[in-house]
Amino acid sequence: MPSDRLETLMESIDDFARERDWSRFHAPSLLSMSVSIEAAELMEVFQWMSPTESTDSLANPEIRERLSDEVADVLIYLLRLCSVSGVDPIEAASTKLARNRSRHWDR
Amino acid sequence: MPSDRLETLMESIDDFARERDWSRFHAPSLLSMSVSIEAAELMEVFQWMSPTESTDSLANPEIRERLSDEVADVLIYLLRLCSVSGVDPIEAASTKLARNRSRHWDR
Amino acid sequence: MPSDRLETLMESIDDFARERDWSRFHAPSLLSMSVSIEAAELMEVFQWMSPTESTDSLANPEIRERLSDEVADVLIYLLRLCSVSGVDPIEAASTKLARNRSRHWDR
Amino acid sequence: MPSDRLETLMESIDDFARERDWSRFHAPSLLSMSVSIEAAELMEVFQWMSPTESTDSLANPEIRERLSDEVADVLIYLLRLCSVSGVDPIEAASTKLARNRSRHWDR
Repeated sequence: MPSDRLETLMESIDDFARERDWSRFHAPSLLSMSVSIEAAELMEVFQWMSPTESTDSLANPEIRERLSDEVADVLIYLLRLCSVSGVDPIEAASTKLARNRSRHWDR
Repeated sequence: MPSDRLETLMESIDDFARERDWSRFHAPSLLSMSVSIEAAELMEVFQWMSPTESTDSLANPEIRERLSDEVADVLIYLLRLCSVSGVDPIEAASTKLARNRSRHWDR
Repeated sequence: MPSDRLETLMESIDDFARERDWSRFHAPSLLSMSVSIEAAELMEVFQWMSPTESTDSLANPEIRERLSDEVADVLIYLLRLCSVSGVDPIEAASTKLARNRSRHWDR
Repeated sequence: MPSDRLETLMESIDDFARERDWSRFHAPSLLSMSVSIEAAELMEVFQWMSPTESTDSLANPEIRERLSDEVADVLIYLLRLCSVSGVDPIEAASTKLARNRSRHWDR
């Protein structure tokens, strides 16, 4: 049975944290701080750029690599927060999308 | 063939944006701002809590629902950013984990 | 002797916190979280706007009021953090400006 | 007549930006992004610390210097945003405090 890619990633992240005995640091509040810190670094990739310039910047391999790197950091801490909190990220996002869909029906 | 859950979610998010003609707003810089705004709302769930209090707060169903809701918002904008930028989030995170693993070898 | 406006404001903020017995919450880490949460709300005023649109939006009194309100929140928590940490915000910024000035000499 | 310290600082920041011809980058939305990026760096000083540990960390001169440095960056961008937007930061914060005071009267 082929395993789900996201689930496999979440297990790798949990293993990584466990091997380093980081569980004592990984309280939800501290993980949410780290998600926010990494989200700011992600935003920093496009600091001082207009929206159009940010789109154009993706042609630059160095920008793409920084972007990929910062996306990774946000996702890793977000998934670790989900793991310690018992939140299924895919289900959470699907539920939210479905709710937004019903809300925005008339637009 | 069973499709990947994350891939299915990314397609739903793209459809949602396309149906509302939001593509013109979804430049990488503006999406990174939204990731950061939602990450702050995620952190706000635990505002003024110590790490231990944040762990204990997960017993509260209202907190769990807010947390799930905010995780969803961060993930939705992060995946939309990946989509418009051509970044594979799972590959990005796996690459980062592998690099961190080799870096922290001795610890 | 006319008192300094910033100093007077810092004292009002400290009084406000003291009267409500908030000192036990006002650890540096928790205050820095609140600065970051309020900074995101400030950014939210301009969510989905291009730089030019954000400049134009200042003609709208409602935007100006939201902006003023969010600037206030960031400043209040930042000054409270300075107060509990013994940092003089004006001196810190002046020192930083002077250092940047010497660094960017040739540009 | 002794000039106000904050006003003097705001003028220095404006001069600094003008000398470097940064006005074209200093749209409100881009400045609010920078406030948020710097606020995250401020929070990073206390990453993984409990509230008590963050208080204790202030005894460390290196932490105090990083803190002072990051406070400076947040304040500089916040004041520059005030300048380009015509917001008086002291008045904004005083108004907010007064409103909060009337709101929390009974607590």
